[in-house]
Amino acid sequence: MKLYSYFRSSASYRVRIALALKELPYEYAAVHLLKGGGQQLSSAYRFVNPEGLVPTLQDDTHVLTQSLAIVEYLNELYPEPPLLPADPADRAYVRSVALQVACEIHPVNNLRVLQYLKQNFAVSEEQKTQWYRHWIDVGFGALESRLKDEARIGAFVFGATPTLADICLVPQVWNARRFKIPLDDFPTVVRVADNAMELEAFKQAEPSNQPDAE
Amino acid sequence: MKLYSYFRSSASYRVRIALALKELPYEYAAVHLLKGGGQQLSSAYRFVNPEGLVPTLQDDTHVLTQSLAIVEYLNELYPEPPLLPADPADRAYVRSVALQVACEIHPVNNLRVLQYLKQNFAVSEEQKTQWYRHWIDVGFGALESRLKDEARIGAFVFGATPTLADICLVPQVWNARRFKIPLDDFPTVVRVADNAMELEAFKQAEPSNQPDAE
Repeated sequence: MKLYSYFRSSASYRVRIALALKELPYEYAAVHLLKGGGQQLSSAYRFVNPEGLVPTLQDDTHVLTQSLAIVEYLNELYPEPPLLPADPADRAYVRSVALQVACEIHPVNNLRVLQYLKQNFAVSEEQKTQWYRHWIDVGFGALESRLKDEARIGAFVFGATPTLADICLVPQVWNARRFKIPLDDFPTVVRVADNAMELEAFKQAEPSNQPDAE
Repeated sequence: MKLYSYFRSSASYRVRIALALKELPYEYAAVHLLKGGGQQLSSAYRFVNPEGLVPTLQDDTHVLTQSLAIVEYLNELYPEPPLLPADPADRAYVRSVALQVACEIHPVNNLRVLQYLKQNFAVSEEQKTQWYRHWIDVGFGALESRLKDEARIGAFVFGATPTLADICLVPQVWNARRFKIPLDDFPTVVRVADNAMELEAFKQAEPSNQPDAE
């Protein structure tokens, strides 16, 4: 398998965690999101992924895009260790936490959105940081109020082993720290993410441990 | 089952389509996203869904949030008609198209983001429309280049019956039309969405057919 990835991309980070948890070897193909106006927008890369986004996972027969779809695919093909619980309502819980990150926080704070704000609305660096912080506060605030009273939480979002939810949560916490966003109001979110970051698979997948890390 | 919904919410619309395709009866609980500063932010509603977002689906024992997690749940509990193909790679394809809408287009154009732009960056109505159109152009552009050459496409995103992908695509096309965004550059996207809109279940789920339609 070949993974097109950028070390700092949260979506790439998610897939790297899933691959590491499943202990699946892969070739790392770096796609630099900033160099030359963004290598993800080059015609060579768009031939692989017309969306011009990372990650893309290529196996012998398929080209797969969108991190959550890739993780579900890996989980269906390589069921051990499971990244989703067995019960449908528990699966919905885990997926909904993953989607709270993937649909409510990450998209509004990703690189191309921040670039648009700067180029088209001439927002200052301070306004950009406020924007970033606002969506972290709203998103992690909602997650915190939900997780703190959740009976199914354990060391991880669901019980004692990491799932798709932790796979989404960890890169978002990593990113928030990179932007120096205070996380004191979200102790449950941080506790769970920190537990996951202690695991070898999550460490392997960390941005600073990638071949293209700067 | 009880569905907390707002007639114009794309995420609610997705779940309404899934419920209609599965022919599942439900009670409709309207949550007005604009009245009184947004009923979704009231403490009464946040008791049901701490995220303060619609939709929420309540059945006898569970409270479910995040539209895609709800649709997957319904599909696991009520397998007929299937909203995902049987083959893992095909499932990944369908899920990735759904996520291209749910993660790349919808979040940046939803109500609370547009409100933030207006309140904090003082963007004009024209700039707001440009922003909206930009993310439709980028998102539908990526989808169009992908779908036009896709062997698995038929009357719908995957073959001859609607899936999770069409469930996400239709509300986004409906919304783009509401904002009067030209869609001429996305003939495949529009063709597929229009085919789906012809189906009775998609009609039932349409915003103008909801009890809280204005």
